[in-house]
Parts: sequence; C-alpha cells; structure tokens
Amino acid sequence: MERLLAQMEFIAEVDKLKTIGRQSYITNGERKENDAEHSWHLALMAVFLSEYAKEDVDVLQVISMVLVHDLVEIDAGDTYAYDTEGNKTKRAREEAAAKRIFGLLPEDQEKKLWDLWEEFEANETPEANFANALDRIQPIMLNHKSGGKAWAEHGVELSQILSRNVNIQKGAPKLWGYAYENYIKPNVGTAIDDNAQ
Amino acid sequence: MERLLAQMEFIAEVDKLKTIGRQSYITNGERKENDAEHSWHLALMAVFLSEYAKEDVDVLQVISMVLVHDLVEIDAGDTYAYDTEGNKTKRAREEAAAKRIFGLLPEDQEKKLWDLWEEFEANETPEANFANALDRIQPIMLNHKSGGKAWAEHGVELSQILSRNVNIQKGAPKLWGYAYENYIKPNVGTAIDDNAQ
Repeated sequence: MERLLAQMEFIAEVDKLKTIGRQSYITNGERKENDAEHSWHLALMAVFLSEYAKEDVDVLQVISMVLVHDLVEIDAGDTYAYDTEGNKTKRAREEAAAKRIFGLLPEDQEKKLWDLWEEFEANETPEANFANALDRIQPIMLNHKSGGKAWAEHGVELSQILSRNVNIQKGAPKLWGYAYENYIKPNVGTAIDDNAQ
Repeated sequence: MERLLAQMEFIAEVDKLKTIGRQSYITNGERKENDAEHSWHLALMAVFLSEYAKEDVDVLQVISMVLVHDLVEIDAGDTYAYDTEGNKTKRAREEAAAKRIFGLLPEDQEKKLWDLWEEFEANETPEANFANALDRIQPIMLNHKSGGKAWAEHGVELSQILSRNVNIQKGAPKLWGYAYENYIKPNVGTAIDDNAQ
C-alpha cells in the first residue's frame, strides 16, 4: 500500500492548486479564476480544439501537460505574464517547488511529472507548442469576455501582448488569427486601427 | 470561420462551470469547491491512478469523460449525492441542459460530447466504471481531508455512503479499499467498529 499511499497524498496535496489565484477574471467578471479552474479549461480546450494544432498532436500528452503545468505554483505562486520583475526569479522558485511537490509521488511517476513539466516549459515538441498556445489564448479570451478588465487593471499594451504571444502562432496559427481579431483588437483600441472595433 | 466561432463560443460558455458550487470543502476547509475544480481534480487522478482501474482503460477517454461530466450542471445545478428529492428530477433537468450546451458545438463535436456524457452516465464500459469511481472517491477524500465537515453538515450515514458507492468497487476495487479504510471509517465513527479509527 506504500505506493498508493504516496499517490493519494499527492492527489490531496495538489488540491491546493484551487487556492492559487490568477489575474484573469472569469467570464461573468465577478472574481478572478484560480489555477485549478484554468487547468481544467485548458484541458477541455485540448479535447475540442486539437484540430487547430499546427502539427498532429497526441491529445493525451497535451492534456497531461496542461493538467500539471501550474502545480509548481502551489509553492511558487502565480507570476503574472506581464510582470517583468517577478518573471526574473520565476524559474528558480518553480524548480524548488517541483522538487517538493513532484517528490511526493513514487519515483516512476515523479519522473513522469518532471518530464511533462519540462516538456511544457521547453516548448519544443508539437504537443508542448499546442499546450502553450492554449495557455496563452485562454486568458486572452477571458480578458475579452469579462470586458477587458484584467488588461486595463495592469495597463497591458499591445506590444507586450504581441511579444509575449508569438508562441501562439507556433502552436496554433488559426487560433492566433481568431484571438487577434476577436479578443485582442477590441481591447487595445487606442493602439491599433479603429476599424478593428 | 463558422466552425471555429461555434467552438470558441462553447469554450467561453462552459466557463460558467466555475460558478457551480459543490458540497465538498477543499482540503484547507475554507470554502466549498466548484465543478471546474472538481473536474480538474478527477482528470489529474485519471493520469496518476489509472493503474488501479479494474480493467485496462483508455486514459484519454476517461479524462475526456471526467472533463465534461458536469457541464450539464451549468443549467441544471449540482444535485448533492445524498439529496433524495433532488435526485428524482435530476435526469430531466440535465437532459434539457445538455441539449442547449452541447448544441453550441458543430454537429460532429456535439455528438462526441453527447457520447461522452451518455457513456459516463450509463457506467457500463471499463472507462466509465473507472471515471465514475474517481468521481465518487474524490469527494470522500476531500471530506476526510477537510475534517469531515461536509458529511457532518448533511448528516450523511454509513449506509448511504455504502449504497451510493458500490460502483467504486466496480471500477477501482483497490481504491475503494483504500478509501474505505482511510477516508470513510474515520468519519462515521459511531456506526462501525471503533478499532477502525
């Protein structure tokens, strides 16, 4: 039972992902979402949008990555995409978190979890490209659907959005085109052609 | 773009799952979880506990089912497992919800979603057996880890737990054994052998 005990303690520990807040508002605008909700949303997107991956992808691998990609934030906290200072220390904080949290699992599954996280972070495989694209598109969609509040609060500018999100094109070019027209343009009105509204 | 528009409107609509409350407390006991968080937790369990499925399972199919199994509650609301009255009208409310919500998708994906939900509800395939087992074990784990509050609030008795959860044995007998010893016995102390504590 030692193996199962370790696995169940891991399953209980990661419940804390539900307490890690993000900067995106849910669509009704009433509150911000948390990492567990975000991870569920990405996994569901993987099920229904995989036809838009640039290359054929193993959907189970994509889903496995998005389900676990934020677990390190249980210890390291969420670093907002457009927070330049926070992003400098992000990797070191997250590696320490991975050591503790992934280490709760039996050795073979600890390795599996490290591999999933490293693949997502390296963003080099077709599956990681697509997973990262979803991870970028979801908050852009939420920002738009909740009235643009999150970007307005943080004074996010078009140049930041574009430079941060070049990876979307890499993993899911059609979704990027859709997001740009429908979710980005309407929320950075002053920076671009007014006709985009 | 009509197909993608429909898919993205579905992805935005199901964001509402984050507002559907459940009766289980998260492990820190501070608040109850919602359906999106619950669905993420089940999907993660499927990734790391599939070795305990009674029969070999297609893990992607299990995960796809658990990610969508509660979408109907966006319209129909969550019916507590031990609410006898609510459970009488549950199916009719949920079918109406499925028609509206699944119907947002392009026809092929609407069918895929109906198939996933029906398979989960019928609980006849090995994948559905395992998905349903996870769906039962997760709240039992949360109840225990949050100090037994949810069952205490609702006056849940051992006989109810046992009759409702025979399906766990069907899908994941070892997980049932673990849950019974570690999560159930300690929280229904008066009904069973004191040594179980």
